[in-house]
Amino acid sequence: MSVNIVVVGSVAYDTLATPKGRREKALGGSASYFSTVASYFTKPGLVGAVGEDFKPEYIEFLTKRNVDMSGLEKLPGKTFHWSGSYSDDFGDATTHATELNVFEHFSPKLPSHFRTAPFLFLANIHPQLQIKVIQDVQKPRLIALDTMNLWINISLPQLKEAIKLVDILFVNRQEAAMLSGEKKLANAIHKLLQMGPKRLVIKMGELGAMTATETDRFFVPAFPCPEITDPTGAGDSFAGGFMGWIAKTGDLSENNFRKAMILGTVMGSITVENFSLDSYHTLSQDEIMERYSQVLDMIRVV
Amino acid sequence: MSVNIVVVGSVAYDTLATPKGRREKALGGSASYFSTVASYFTKPGLVGAVGEDFKPEYIEFLTKRNVDMSGLEKLPGKTFHWSGSYSDDFGDATTHATELNVFEHFSPKLPSHFRTAPFLFLANIHPQLQIKVIQDVQKPRLIALDTMNLWINISLPQLKEAIKLVDILFVNRQEAAMLSGEKKLANAIHKLLQMGPKRLVIKMGELGAMTATETDRFFVPAFPCPEITDPTGAGDSFAGGFMGWIAKTGDLSENNFRKAMILGTVMGSITVENFSLDSYHTLSQDEIMERYSQVLDMIRVV
Repeated sequence: MSVNIVVVGSVAYDTLATPKGRREKALGGSASYFSTVASYFTKPGLVGAVGEDFKPEYIEFLTKRNVDMSGLEKLPGKTFHWSGSYSDDFGDATTHATELNVFEHFSPKLPSHFRTAPFLFLANIHPQLQIKVIQDVQKPRLIALDTMNLWINISLPQLKEAIKLVDILFVNRQEAAMLSGEKKLANAIHKLLQMGPKRLVIKMGELGAMTATETDRFFVPAFPCPEITDPTGAGDSFAGGFMGWIAKTGDLSENNFRKAMILGTVMGSITVENFSLDSYHTLSQDEIMERYSQVLDMIRVV
Repeated sequence: MSVNIVVVGSVAYDTLATPKGRREKALGGSASYFSTVASYFTKPGLVGAVGEDFKPEYIEFLTKRNVDMSGLEKLPGKTFHWSGSYSDDFGDATTHATELNVFEHFSPKLPSHFRTAPFLFLANIHPQLQIKVIQDVQKPRLIALDTMNLWINISLPQLKEAIKLVDILFVNRQEAAMLSGEKKLANAIHKLLQMGPKRLVIKMGELGAMTATETDRFFVPAFPCPEITDPTGAGDSFAGGFMGWIAKTGDLSENNFRKAMILGTVMGSITVENFSLDSYHTLSQDEIMERYSQVLDMIRVV
């Protein structure tokens, strides 16, 4: 099965403490979350880098999940390592240490069979690298980009350049306000759509998520999820579910993007119930469809 | 046509400045907004008080809208008068003056034909008065209550007593957090439902509104509404549309409450497009149904 969607992002060790426990050097990173989740829908290819210390069982896990790992470079040195903790209400993470290690000089190299993949997801990395990847691929049907406040603060011109080149922009509400200079959501949406993307996906944490184009708005409430164990990776899992579905179906209609929003919501809710990517050791397609129906019930009016 | 829903609240003069203009002694007050909006669906009865200075044309307007005004007392003194302004982004209002006038010693008196009305809406007045009204009526099918941060701050025990007696609680997100002591929405919902009401309606401003019971959640995004003229009364109009629909249909199913949420959203959006209650000089049922369909389109997945 050839690679249908390429993700470029981080593969990391996460050392974290949440109100539910602690983990040392758990599998983390945006590309790990995205590709694991997307693998439930289609064939992902991962582009990233790890150090010589990276645990082989993590590569085995991703390979077993049917992720094409030929774009993962092993570089001299140590793997990117994030350490952080979450407060009792699972609000914002407090970062204790960010050791970039091999990720500091990471420059994504796409295997040749990745360059013709029809779907591309640029996870949160330096916008200059996102632009490089876009130049490396051969006209995908759809390019989506995620970012974070760091790049808005230190690389705004390059980030705007990258955003101009993509079809879908993933942001949270704070990033939407920062990027657009507009506090009001309706104004922020309007300005961001003028920057290039045809569609926005705006993540709003416990409220849910919205997708917006010039003509359509769609809102999915968050999955009612009382048993959060580890919120790390919720956003990348949302993107993995959303883009995985779009890549699987190849259907770019408004209605199908709405289904993708629901699947993003579902996959985010599954990720946060366990540490790291532990939920995906046992998850079945049936559980995904069960939650999909539950979210549909939450928004249905007849 | 006998009164189907009773609203107890304020009838006021509003003097206000918004980025779109200024108004002196415009018709305002929670009961005015609620009953005007509800009159598009059913027969409302209004309970409130005004002073000797109250403009007769405002009473004529409400009477023409088919609001039973026999519960409006005219008292010696002046009408409740609120003065305020809104900033450029129509954020929170800045209050310049609140002259309670006759409203200071207002004690609601229900005409006898109001006491048997099947639906009751207690707009934002002192919780002690809300309790008094509940004791005055004969077992309505449904009682809903609105409140504000003022009563949470200065009359919390009485407010909790009132909330215990009602079926539906209307709050905004800030009030939900204050009342429950929980910042996290899921926890706030759980605690508020333990306080007595079977259903919550949580207004979230430009994000939309949510309704929650122990078993169901439903979210309606805000109507895309770029031309706000005067945000005053948006919440009372939401409640008027919501409760007006429930009173009209008498259907207390989850699906019908979802329709009510959409109609609340629609009526709020109509109110804020003009000053005061000006939108309702010309509004037709067709325009309501047109917006209802637009909101349905925003949440439909097939």
